[in-house]
Parts: sequence; C-alpha cells; structure tokens
Amino acid sequence: MKGLMMDYPLVIPRILERARRVHSESEIVSYSAEGKKHVYTWNEFYGRVVRLMNVLRKLGVKKGDRVATFAWNHHRHLELYYAVPCLGAVVHTLNIRLFPEQLSYIVNHAEDKLIFVDDSLIKPIEALAGEFKTVEKYIVMGDNGNPETSLSPAVDYESLMADADDTVDFPEIEENQASGLCYTSGTTGNPKGALYSHRAIFLHTLMACLPDGMNLTDRDTVMPVVPMFHANAWSVPYNAAMMGSRLVFAGANVMPDNLVRIINEESVTMALGVPTIWTGMLQHLRKTGEKLNTVHSMLVGGAAVPRAMIEAFKKEFDVNIMQGWGMTEMTPLGSVARLKRKMLDWPEDRQFDALAKAGVPSACVEMKIVDDAGNELPWDGESTGELLVRGPAVVSGYYNDAEASKNAISADGWFRTGDVATIDENAVMGISDRTKDLIKSGGEWISSVEMENAIMGMDKVLESAVVARPDPKWDERPVAFVVPTPDGGGVTPEQVLDHLTNEFAKWQLPDLEDIRIIAEIPKTSVGKFDKKVLRANNL
Amino acid sequence: MKGLMMDYPLVIPRILERARRVHSESEIVSYSAEGKKHVYTWNEFYGRVVRLMNVLRKLGVKKGDRVATFAWNHHRHLELYYAVPCLGAVVHTLNIRLFPEQLSYIVNHAEDKLIFVDDSLIKPIEALAGEFKTVEKYIVMGDNGNPETSLSPAVDYESLMADADDTVDFPEIEENQASGLCYTSGTTGNPKGALYSHRAIFLHTLMACLPDGMNLTDRDTVMPVVPMFHANAWSVPYNAAMMGSRLVFAGANVMPDNLVRIINEESVTMALGVPTIWTGMLQHLRKTGEKLNTVHSMLVGGAAVPRAMIEAFKKEFDVNIMQGWGMTEMTPLGSVARLKRKMLDWPEDRQFDALAKAGVPSACVEMKIVDDAGNELPWDGESTGELLVRGPAVVSGYYNDAEASKNAISADGWFRTGDVATIDENAVMGISDRTKDLIKSGGEWISSVEMENAIMGMDKVLESAVVARPDPKWDERPVAFVVPTPDGGGVTPEQVLDHLTNEFAKWQLPDLEDIRIIAEIPKTSVGKFDKKVLRANNL
Repeated sequence: MKGLMMDYPLVIPRILERARRVHSESEIVSYSAEGKKHVYTWNEFYGRVVRLMNVLRKLGVKKGDRVATFAWNHHRHLELYYAVPCLGAVVHTLNIRLFPEQLSYIVNHAEDKLIFVDDSLIKPIEALAGEFKTVEKYIVMGDNGNPETSLSPAVDYESLMADADDTVDFPEIEENQASGLCYTSGTTGNPKGALYSHRAIFLHTLMACLPDGMNLTDRDTVMPVVPMFHANAWSVPYNAAMMGSRLVFAGANVMPDNLVRIINEESVTMALGVPTIWTGMLQHLRKTGEKLNTVHSMLVGGAAVPRAMIEAFKKEFDVNIMQGWGMTEMTPLGSVARLKRKMLDWPEDRQFDALAKAGVPSACVEMKIVDDAGNELPWDGESTGELLVRGPAVVSGYYNDAEASKNAISADGWFRTGDVATIDENAVMGISDRTKDLIKSGGEWISSVEMENAIMGMDKVLESAVVARPDPKWDERPVAFVVPTPDGGGVTPEQVLDHLTNEFAKWQLPDLEDIRIIAEIPKTSVGKFDKKVLRANNL
Repeated sequence: MKGLMMDYPLVIPRILERARRVHSESEIVSYSAEGKKHVYTWNEFYGRVVRLMNVLRKLGVKKGDRVATFAWNHHRHLELYYAVPCLGAVVHTLNIRLFPEQLSYIVNHAEDKLIFVDDSLIKPIEALAGEFKTVEKYIVMGDNGNPETSLSPAVDYESLMADADDTVDFPEIEENQASGLCYTSGTTGNPKGALYSHRAIFLHTLMACLPDGMNLTDRDTVMPVVPMFHANAWSVPYNAAMMGSRLVFAGANVMPDNLVRIINEESVTMALGVPTIWTGMLQHLRKTGEKLNTVHSMLVGGAAVPRAMIEAFKKEFDVNIMQGWGMTEMTPLGSVARLKRKMLDWPEDRQFDALAKAGVPSACVEMKIVDDAGNELPWDGESTGELLVRGPAVVSGYYNDAEASKNAISADGWFRTGDVATIDENAVMGISDRTKDLIKSGGEWISSVEMENAIMGMDKVLESAVVARPDPKWDERPVAFVVPTPDGGGVTPEQVLDHLTNEFAKWQLPDLEDIRIIAEIPKTSVGKFDKKVLRANNL
C-alpha cells in the first residue's frame, strides 16, 4: 500500500523558489577578482536566474547538456549553479587549477557544449581551446564588457543578460535527473566524474544544514572559501538559499589579510575551507593582533585538520573549528566532528583529541569499515579497515567510465572511499590514511597522517607531509617533510625527532636524515599536499 | 540524463539503523501511567524493535496491514512506531479522546487487524469491541502481566516479547510505501485518515530538526508532551532517533507539577505540546516559585499561542516559546515562529508580536494564500485568504475517502488547509481565523456543528448555535445558545446538558453556565447564524 502523500519532486528549482519567497531580502555579497563589491538579494538573484535560463535556451542548451564553468567564487557563478540545472541541463564545474592535459581530457570526456569563463581566467582556456572537441561557444564573465580574446565564438555574459527576456519558464524536472558534474583529480588514471542528481543535492542540503552539521540559520552570514569548482563548494550555494543565510564570496584573493578584512567587514559568522587557508590565517592573526569578531565556527575539511590548529583557534580566537570529512563523490559531506553529549564532561585535552578526528557520520550517510576480505570490522576505535559509505547523496559510479565505476562500488553496493579508518564506540570516525599513503615497514603499518599531525602540533612547524620511501630492508620507511613557521625561528630535524619520540614507537620513527626541512610543500590543484610530486622530486 | 547517485530509499529502517549505530548510548526514558521509570538506550531499543517485528510476523501481520495503537506516550508505543512500519505495515494511532462512535468508525474504516492497548485504557476498547469488524486480536501493554479483560482474544505484550526470537530481518521497503495512519476529527462528516509514507516521515524528520525548526542535537533531551496519537507526536519519535537526542516520555500524568518535576529531574532541554499544557505550567511555576532549569525552548502548537504566554516564559523563566503551526495532514509541521535576521534589531514588543504569529514556512513546505476564486494573494500582511500548502510531507488525499480527498486538493494540486491566513513581506504567516465552526479545547477539536445538531434534535428546541469562548486553561470552550420552541414549554440548561451527555465525551460538554437560553439567534443577510454577532454581544 502506498502512502497518500504529495508527489513533490526534490529538485533545485524548489530551493530557488524558497529563497525567492521566504528569504527574499537576504543578501548575496560578491567580491570580484579586482575586489569590487556586488550585492543583491535572493529575490533579485531569482530574476537574474530566470534571465540566464532564457540566455541558455537561446544558446541552444537542451535537457542533459553539459555546461561548463571555469571561474572563481562569485555571483555569476552562483547564477549558473541554479540556471543550468533549473533548465534540466548539467552544470559542470571545471577546476581552474588542473593541469592542461587533465583539463582538456575532462572537457572532452564530459562533452561540454558551452564554457562560461572568468575574464581573469581566460588565458588557460585560450591555450587549450584548440583541443576541445565539443565546445560551441565561450561566454566570458566579468565587469568590463567584451574582452579581447582568441576564443571563438566568444560572447560577453552581461551583454547576453541585458538582451535576455524575463519570461518565467521552469520545465518539469524529475528528481533523479542529473544536475551537476564534478571531476575528481584522481591519484592514478584519468579524472573521474561525479554526476549529481537534483534529489542528491536537495537531500544533501537538508542534512548538511542540520544543527550537528553546518548548523546554518537565516541569521548566519556564511563565506565559502572553498572554491565553487570543488564538490559544489561543499553545497553552500544551495544551503544558503534553503536556509536564507547571507552569502559572501571573497573572490579570487584568498590571502589571509583579504579574508580577515572581508570577514570583519561583512560580519561573517561561519566560514568554510581547506586547512591551508586557516593555517595561513592563524599566522596572520597572531602577527597582526587582528580578531575574527563575528565568526562562531569554521568548517574545515578537504585534508586532515591539525589538532594544534583546532586548539589554537578555540583558545586564542574563540572560534570553533569543526572538522568535516567528505568526498567529491559524496556531494560532499560525510561527517562532522562535534562534541557529543558524553564528551561535554571530558577534560579539554580529550575533547580536542575527539575534534581532531573526522567526526560522526552525518544524517543520510552510513559508514562501515571492512578488512581486505570485505568483512565488517567492529567500531572499537582500534580496528582499522577500508572505509565504505552509502547514502542518497553518494555516487553509484562515475560518468561514462565503466571500469572506474566497477572498482568504486563494493559487491554489496557500498562506495569504496579508498580511505583507511577507525570508528570508535561513539561513532567517531578517524581517517588513518589514504590506502595509498600508508607506510608499510617490516610488515607493519605506519600512519603518515598521524605522524603529520604530530609534527604539525609543534609550535615552530607550519606544515608537514610524510611519505614512504622504498627501503631494501624494511620495504618502506617514512620520510617527513617539514616547513617551519615563517617567523624565522626555524626547526631542526633533531627537534622533530625528539618530539615524535613521545608519540611513536621506536621502529616507526623516521631516520634523522629522513626528516627534511623544506620551504614549502607542493600542493595539488585542490590544495592538498601533493605527495606524488614530493616523492618524485625528493626520494 | 539521470544522475549517478545511489538508489537509497528514504525509509524508517534507515532512521532506526542510524540510532543503533551512531547514537547507540543515547537514552529513552519512559514514565508509566503509575509513574514508574523505564530507561534503555537506542541500541537496546533496536533489539526490542527486532523482537516486536517477529511478534507481529507471528501474529500474521503482512505488508500494508493496519496495526492500531490506543496508548499514552511510552517506550512500548515507540517500539510500535518503528516495528510496524519496518515490517512494511501501517501503524495507526487511535486518539484515546475520541467519542466512541468516531472510534468505532475509524477502526472499521481503517480495517485495523490488531489493537495494541494500554492496560490503563482498556475500558473504552472493551465497550466498543463488539462493533469492531476486522480486529483479530488485542495486545495489552503494561507492567503487570496478563490483565483481566473481556477483550478476546487478548494477549500480554511483554509475554509475547519474552517468547519472540531475535532474528534480524528487515524486508525491502519502497520509500512511497505507507508507514502510518492518523485520523483527523474534522469539522463535518466522518473523520478522515492521513496516510503517511516512509519518504514523508524521513524528509519531515530532516526538515523539522533544522536549526530554524526544532533545532535538535544529540546534546538535547527532548520531551514530547504532545500525545503520540496526535500526528506522529509532531515527529519527535523519529527526530530523536535521527539526531540522537535523549527522549523523555512523561507518561499519562500531564499535570504541571508532574511535568515540572520530570523536566528538572531529567534535565529536559526542549519540550513540545499544546498551549493549554504550558498555560497550566505557567500558573504552577508562578505559584510554586519553581524554575525550568535546563529548558531552552518549547515548541508550542496545535492552537494559537497567546502572546502573553510567550512573553511571560521568556521574561520570567528565560524559556523561548517557539510557536509552531501544522496539521495532521502535514506530518505535521508547517511553520515555526523565530526571529529572522532583520527582526533582531526590532524593539522587544515588536519581536513578541512576530513570535505570536504562526511563523515562517519550514523547509519543504510551500505556502500561498488565495481568494475565493483561487487567485493568489500578495504577501503584504494585509491580504487575507485561504491558506494552501504543498510539499513532500503533505497529504494528496485521505485514506479510502474519495469525496473528502477531492475537496481537500485545489485544482492546481495544493492542499486546502481550511485556515484563513495572512503572509507578510517577511514570509511570516499568521492564522487570522481558525475555520470558524471549530472549537479547540485542550488541543482537541469540538465540532460546533455537531453540537448544534444534537441540541436542535431536542423536541423543545427551535434552534441553537454553538461558538467558542476564550478560556485561560483550555484555550477555547463551547458556549451553546439555545432558542426554545415558541410553544411556551421552555427548556432548561440542565436538560440540554443532560441531552448532550448521550452524544459527547465529558470534556467536550459545555459548562452549565455556558448554556444560554435566548429568544433569537442573530442571522446574516443570507439567513445563516451570525456567530460574529453572537460572540460580540454575549462573550
């Protein structure tokens, strides 16, 4: 027997409609690459989306077509986040930091029909346009009218918008229809595309905003420093519309001084981004004596968050760092570290230990850890296994990639994250490593993540990455790369080794000559430590 | 093109599984009718639900079967809230305050197969059992073993549970499958059944727990004083499991002294119920000088919440009263009154004015107001029209009632609430008129039309009109105006009351002084009773 409830599809146009009606006066603040400020309301935003839908129609965009973006965080990018899927097409966010070969592979693999590109980012697209097989037109986004470009045909975004008509016409959309596409820059092989559905986005928005998630209200001002070409900007563009939060885009300048200025000028209450952003900000705040006057919390993810950073922000700036864990393949939220009821009585040190883990599975996310044979392991905080997840906002495969799709899903239908994790009796998950980043020494595992965290807990250390080097006797041995804080104090390998002795067994410790003090750790296009490059250049 | 996301059905077993794994240690505290306290964890609860599912299987319950409850708020009732739908059957919560005729109509209309009844509530069921056409067995819930009863066949809940096996077997369930059934005692005609689906319950749980909704976390202790036979107890039984909130059932004794004692003993942080409960509590607190030590908010709904009460709780007890509006047909949440960003700067008086309205539409709830011709009216705070709603947790019709279903849904597919409302430019909805023929007493409906008909059925009565008068304790109480036949025989209030006793429950009866013998009932221009004039001149 079926229930007698309305057949109400969970689609992005419903989120937009809510923003227009219920949160009409809430603002979207957007700083351009040049620092120019643009402000409009969700109600005005709606009018722009309607026009953009008509622009897209005129450009020949049909249901299911892929429409690419190559852009920073700003209001025009946000308009594409809505207009493309509201038309039944697929918004494909290209990562502006990808290597050229990856970029052309992705554009051709996705068969993008249009590319919307920031005028400040036009060069890399010009360099590659000859290789794009399906792109029919380039639309350039900026404040300066028709740009000089070799792209052809190329048109100016604002000119198209000025000519567009205002007819409101939202087509019927089925909730499982594709809405967005984002490729992960995989470690091996070609990039793989996560193809989001309207339903997944809608559900993810509800679950991500829950009090034990991002905890967003209409009284918040939220600033995603995470780029919009990263996994839906962690869904903030949809979350803010659903909840009515004021939304602030900081633009292309994500240097600490600029971010702190905008945070305080716009009274940001919540910010989101990868750890490197906040590491830099912490240094800046300590140096300048500035404060974050209105921020109550920051969701930090994309890479392991150092415990020392969580503690420092809390104690020095009264800001709660919530570590989040997720994946492009999870829309992306998987877990958030927060203090559960029983932890409220714990001593502070133990609380910070808990907050330094990946956190508690979010609503709509199921987790399990399994051994090599696929057997489920207990949630005892000790057992370590591959982390599998499932839920309505988790991919069932990759776009047009049968091989990768097959490998990604377990025999019983769970997504294989490739992370190695523990889950304790409080349902707190901790990532011990990427499967590929584990160091196997003398038949035993050493966690590079734990060693990195330990090193980054040192006052004089800015960041650290630990990788494996081949070793004739032990198979693999850890090599620790250490970047000192820029205050000039410096740190020595001896000091690092001495510090590690407190937390690691003797056989796990790197040799003294395997502790390398360097100026900077190379980063991937999404800001994660690029261990591939570290290994290639240094081992 | 479809998205490539997991086909993950939104079903109640997923909520239960989350409670077991993620919130395993969070407690369910349940006070019996006699005040005995029972405590177990969500993990232990899961084991009981598994056993109860096997009990139900043994009793022959199949997918789609209706299984009724006639019970107060307690842990066994909660077990039924999960075990029945997890089996694919439909949990049908019978309102213990219904008049006998309505009750037997509902049981027969729903074709209930089993009735689970509290031992303390066995009498009204015994009195009606002869009229039930489909009930195969009665299961009596209590702490005292096999009860003396004329119900046949009747078995003891705990004896069945003791004999049940522990095999875990959750059948596949499609998300649109029916999960629950709750009848509304409507204004006219027979009661109508809202048939909930798993999907509606799941989505409602997510949206109801959002920060601008009930705002529930795993650090909360939540006490639903709203009965579990009212619209899913406002979804708290599912919300608490999803969020991991500690859940407290106060039992059958909802007198203020008992509630205050339990709130303070159990450190309740959030409570929910109809206004009469809190009106009584306010009196009690003022008299005794007691405080609510841990409560930060109370969701109050089911009838209009007096502004004075909101102000008093805030100023005298630092408790935030959140007014909620909803309907059985909406699973039930429709809106919550909270201060939006712009209202934070308002003077206190204006803030209380805003909080005294029905509030802002919840996520997943769309609203509009229309005139008699169905034309949409502006959100200007002035225009008054019928309130229509739609969303994934709103009914599309009534169970097995084509006529009522047709009337309930507008031509363009919205649910007609029967309420008359305004919506202002801040999206704050205000109910300006309850459907005027209804009297809401202690959170329950009394139909004035039915009472008028009953009185007018007396030989000595010419006509009668029944209206609501405001009542500090019950919100509204019926006042019956009675015009004797002109033959001079006359009629006394005592005779009217005596007559009504045959057809109405005791709590529905007007007080003797509220039965007014008058010479004529004022009429409108089209000859209808003019209740506005009656109220104005006589209350």
